Amino acid sequence: MQLHSFFNSSASYRVRIALALKGLASDYVPVNIRAGAHRDAEYIDRVNPSAVVPALVDGEFALGQSLAIIDYLDARHPEPRLIPSEPTLRARVLEFAYLISCDIHPVNNLRILKYLDAVLHVTPEQKDAWYKHWIAEGMAGVERMLVRHGQGPWCFGGAPTLADCCLVPQIANAQRMGCDLTLYPLSLAAYRHAMEHPAFDAAQPNKQPDYLGS
Amino acid sequence: MQLHSFFNSSASYRVRIALALKGLASDYVPVNIRAGAHRDAEYIDRVNPSAVVPALVDGEFALGQSLAIIDYLDARHPEPRLIPSEPTLRARVLEFAYLISCDIHPVNNLRILKYLDAVLHVTPEQKDAWYKHWIAEGMAGVERMLVRHGQGPWCFGGAPTLADCCLVPQIANAQRMGCDLTLYPLSLAAYRHAMEHPAFDAAQPNKQPDYLGS
Repeated sequence: MQLHSFFNSSASYRVRIALALKGLASDYVPVNIRAGAHRDAEYIDRVNPSAVVPALVDGEFALGQSLAIIDYLDARHPEPRLIPSEPTLRARVLEFAYLISCDIHPVNNLRILKYLDAVLHVTPEQKDAWYKHWIAEGMAGVERMLVRHGQGPWCFGGAPTLADCCLVPQIANAQRMGCDLTLYPLSLAAYRHAMEHPAFDAAQPNKQPDYLGS
Repeated sequence: MQLHSFFNSSASYRVRIALALKGLASDYVPVNIRAGAHRDAEYIDRVNPSAVVPALVDGEFALGQSLAIIDYLDARHPEPRLIPSEPTLRARVLEFAYLISCDIHPVNNLRILKYLDAVLHVTPEQKDAWYKHWIAEGMAGVERMLVRHGQGPWCFGGAPTLADCCLVPQIANAQRMGCDLTLYPLSLAAYRHAMEHPAFDAAQPNKQPDYLGS
């Protein structure tokens, strides 16, 4: 398998965690989205028609979208299972993963911040306020979900799931951008627990071959 | 079951389609997100800790996030199945649904447009350009995915799936905002096919009890 990834992409980070938790080897193919490599015709034609990272290539089968890739990996390599099959737990894990992947991450990703700069000419203070506003709004929901439904030491109990694969890159990003996360103690506890696990550690941006600094 | 929904919310619209396709009755509970009703303490405490629509309440079980709700409905009420079980088709349907739900819809939803207005004080022209930029970028990827992997008359073959549940509200929104969609003929063909189906028709914003005009 090949993973087309950018070290600093949260969505790539999610898949790196999943691969590491399952002990699956893959070739790391860097796609420098800062330099626009995800828009290269060859990448679009051969790997990912939607022109984003990550993408997994498994033999002849190329697949984009981090959560679709993790679902696929769960089907092909079920141990350990990251999207639980028990219905109630499954629903909570998916709800939590979508809260991060649909409601928080997309609004603060690289292309949005670039547009704020290059097209809307916002000030650095406005960009910083934008980032922190959506983190505060989103993380409040994440924390309330963990208060209501979470069970440690992982987000949802005794084993890592897709929820942890989504939470960790989001928290890491927010920390990198200087957000105050002390209001979200359960989220931080789950993050810290995860970072002690070698799979989460190995998947970090600064452990990737294309690491360029933060 | 109760569906907490706002007529004009794309994510609510996805779930309304899924319920209608499965022929499931539910009580429609309006949540006026324009007026901030999703932030009411009672809604957060009793229904959805992440303070967004839609939410499904099934007996004692309350669940947020449209895609988690549709996965739950597929488990509880499998006919017709909206997230296929066949691995390759499943992967494509999820990839396509996430492309819309994670990469297009979140960037143009109500709260973002409100922030552009109220905090960044963009001009109407800048807001319009923002909307159309992300539609153009996202729909190009959607169309390329259908060129590469799609099979009519639905997005992925002879039956509606989660892909169609996500495509239809996205296209409807883009049309409402005056986007030129002629560049995306396969997407438009799938949309038009879907809109001839009574479940998609019944789930439209203007057929909901809380419809307030576009």
